[in-house]
Amino acid sequence: MIPDLFEETPMSASPAIEPVPLLLRHDADGIRTLTMNRPAARNALSEAMIDALQVELDTIRDDAAVRVVVIAGEGPGFCAGHDLREVRSRVDTAFYDVLMKKCARMMTSIVRLPKPVIARVHGIATAAGCQLVASCDLAIAADTARFATPGVNIGLFCSTPMVALSRNVAPKHAMEMLLTGEMIDAEAAARMGLVNQVVPAGELDGAVRALALKIASKSSYTLKVGKEAFYRQLELSLDEAYLYASKVMLENLMAADAAEGMDAFLEKRQPVWRGC
Amino acid sequence: MIPDLFEETPMSASPAIEPVPLLLRHDADGIRTLTMNRPAARNALSEAMIDALQVELDTIRDDAAVRVVVIAGEGPGFCAGHDLREVRSRVDTAFYDVLMKKCARMMTSIVRLPKPVIARVHGIATAAGCQLVASCDLAIAADTARFATPGVNIGLFCSTPMVALSRNVAPKHAMEMLLTGEMIDAEAAARMGLVNQVVPAGELDGAVRALALKIASKSSYTLKVGKEAFYRQLELSLDEAYLYASKVMLENLMAADAAEGMDAFLEKRQPVWRGC
Amino acid sequence: MIPDLFEETPMSASPAIEPVPLLLRHDADGIRTLTMNRPAARNALSEAMIDALQVELDTIRDDAAVRVVVIAGEGPGFCAGHDLREVRSRVDTAFYDVLMKKCARMMTSIVRLPKPVIARVHGIATAAGCQLVASCDLAIAADTARFATPGVNIGLFCSTPMVALSRNVAPKHAMEMLLTGEMIDAEAAARMGLVNQVVPAGELDGAVRALALKIASKSSYTLKVGKEAFYRQLELSLDEAYLYASKVMLENLMAADAAEGMDAFLEKRQPVWRGC
Repeated sequence: MIPDLFEETPMSASPAIEPVPLLLRHDADGIRTLTMNRPAARNALSEAMIDALQVELDTIRDDAAVRVVVIAGEGPGFCAGHDLREVRSRVDTAFYDVLMKKCARMMTSIVRLPKPVIARVHGIATAAGCQLVASCDLAIAADTARFATPGVNIGLFCSTPMVALSRNVAPKHAMEMLLTGEMIDAEAAARMGLVNQVVPAGELDGAVRALALKIASKSSYTLKVGKEAFYRQLELSLDEAYLYASKVMLENLMAADAAEGMDAFLEKRQPVWRGC
Repeated sequence: MIPDLFEETPMSASPAIEPVPLLLRHDADGIRTLTMNRPAARNALSEAMIDALQVELDTIRDDAAVRVVVIAGEGPGFCAGHDLREVRSRVDTAFYDVLMKKCARMMTSIVRLPKPVIARVHGIATAAGCQLVASCDLAIAADTARFATPGVNIGLFCSTPMVALSRNVAPKHAMEMLLTGEMIDAEAAARMGLVNQVVPAGELDGAVRALALKIASKSSYTLKVGKEAFYRQLELSLDEAYLYASKVMLENLMAADAAEGMDAFLEKRQPVWRGC
Repeated sequence: MIPDLFEETPMSASPAIEPVPLLLRHDADGIRTLTMNRPAARNALSEAMIDALQVELDTIRDDAAVRVVVIAGEGPGFCAGHDLREVRSRVDTAFYDVLMKKCARMMTSIVRLPKPVIARVHGIATAAGCQLVASCDLAIAADTARFATPGVNIGLFCSTPMVALSRNVAPKHAMEMLLTGEMIDAEAAARMGLVNQVVPAGELDGAVRALALKIASKSSYTLKVGKEAFYRQLELSLDEAYLYASKVMLENLMAADAAEGMDAFLEKRQPVWRGC
């Protein structure tokens, strides 16, 4: 049902000449890699690109073959945020409203996806591109990666990117990025907690693959239960969080994969997951 | 309407001899620097000092000439918190109630001010002085700065300072400062996220000025929209935050400064802000 | 009323031979050290161990002689989390429900205890053992300490440990521990904010004692007021937090220990606490 290639629709007003496939898809060992493919536009999140990502995320949700998702970018940049040419060519409240809603929905779909999502960041990740990194569960950056929320430089504060950013890093760090609009390097992003790890550019694919494989080896049922519970309990008070998490734990304890996992551990053998 | 100098009112029972101007004001390039000027008392937040800061913040709110605020301290310390002599000389629930309310109102006025506020910390910032740093959007410290919430040492837990502190740093870091009352140095404060940057004492003014000028060059409308949205969305759930931030973004997209900023960017020229 | 030793009850199905005292208690200078004593089981939190800790915490609450609590572990590990043999030997929703509730209650009892609690972590702290560290107000780790939430490896996501963990460290750090199940070392735990300090193993007792003594020298009334206020205000909005903390401060200002503390400070002498 989902084609391997997404072409830019005529809706996209970007005058730049783009290669045909808007989003590349690659599967290996339960890891689906989605590669944004508008290299000349630094993979800007045009409406068409957001739509393409949304379709993929919706499909992945119920696809048992996909255990871990990697989001990557083709060309020199990871993702430069919204497509300014498109935005300026369509000064229209209704369009902006749709664009903002689609973008927020796509970002929360990453958070709500019952499978871990890893950002593979090799170049600039700015504005909604930085939000994309912040919205993923995990992120590995090459030492060539750079991060910014530069909207303030063009009169358009990065208000939606900051929803994700400010849930990743300390307030003064977020505020510095938001108020100055300046680039920070990968090491600074790691110190702040925006990315998990920084590696030399040549080792990025290996590091992402190693992390993805490690997670893909776990029970998909357990990952689903845990990821959902993580974000839900974060928004609760301590007492509510324990009440909720204890229920989650109780259900998890009665699941086949927990029984198998505990037995395998006690018997010093590898578990065989059933995914339930 | 606002005089340049504030004298201690007869209400202040502090017996220390203080220089006449309680708060110094300096304007340059859209940057208003407020310098607490009770050096002998390490700029303690007497009722009069809190009042003086409140008057200034209220005035700045609607003063279009002020784009960025810097809070600094004269003499060896940045700010030593409440004025203990004043507090002990007026053992009176009604006075304490007023003092606590005024202090909390002044601190939240910094957070609610539609303009970025930078703390310039050159010496000790303790108790409510540490809270003042935590309440600012950004902070630059000299390597001579020191931070503490030492109320626990005098039987008076830093309960109001911790409101700001615990919204800046990790719980175990906040708890260590609050339970031990010990000083931490500028580097530790930077690692925790309490300050953005540490510089040699001789470079403090240059670093503060560079940061303030950079931010002052942005659209004041955009800064106002963004700062307000930052603190509001922080208290919302993810879904509510995106709903709210998307509305903010939509309004921002239709503003003159965003149109100008995007056009200037696409045309590779400097934007000319109209502040709306 | 509380015996010095807790023996494993016949309820515990653990087949491992354990030394008789399940929890060791040691008092010195107002510091009560509780040492989990199932070294062969890496001090796993069997139902009996959770019960023993709960009884101790309930007793300490009203024992004026105890000013600071230290939680430690005997043998090579600090605490390996739930007792898997016990869990697998009793596949029973009712038992799991009780176990989860007891564990959550014990962890929140640490948070609600009106006295500071320090974790002394010398070895592995995994799953609910990692949660135990995260639930303490402060933690000092030896460089030999290791931390993990490895439930995902056995099909049982560390959903209750993550309630405490995700309130200590940044989301991407928590997610990496939860999704990979991998061990992190003491230095990484310190960078993340999970522990306050890392010391060479030979200096652990000295460092814990120095920190505990420093805190034990404060007014127990002030510590109680402050610790309770810390966790309560964390769950409030900024305005609510200031309203609440100002009330706490007002009450604290009228207390005997605050009067004594301020007078002692102004008179440059040591305060004598009355604990009220």
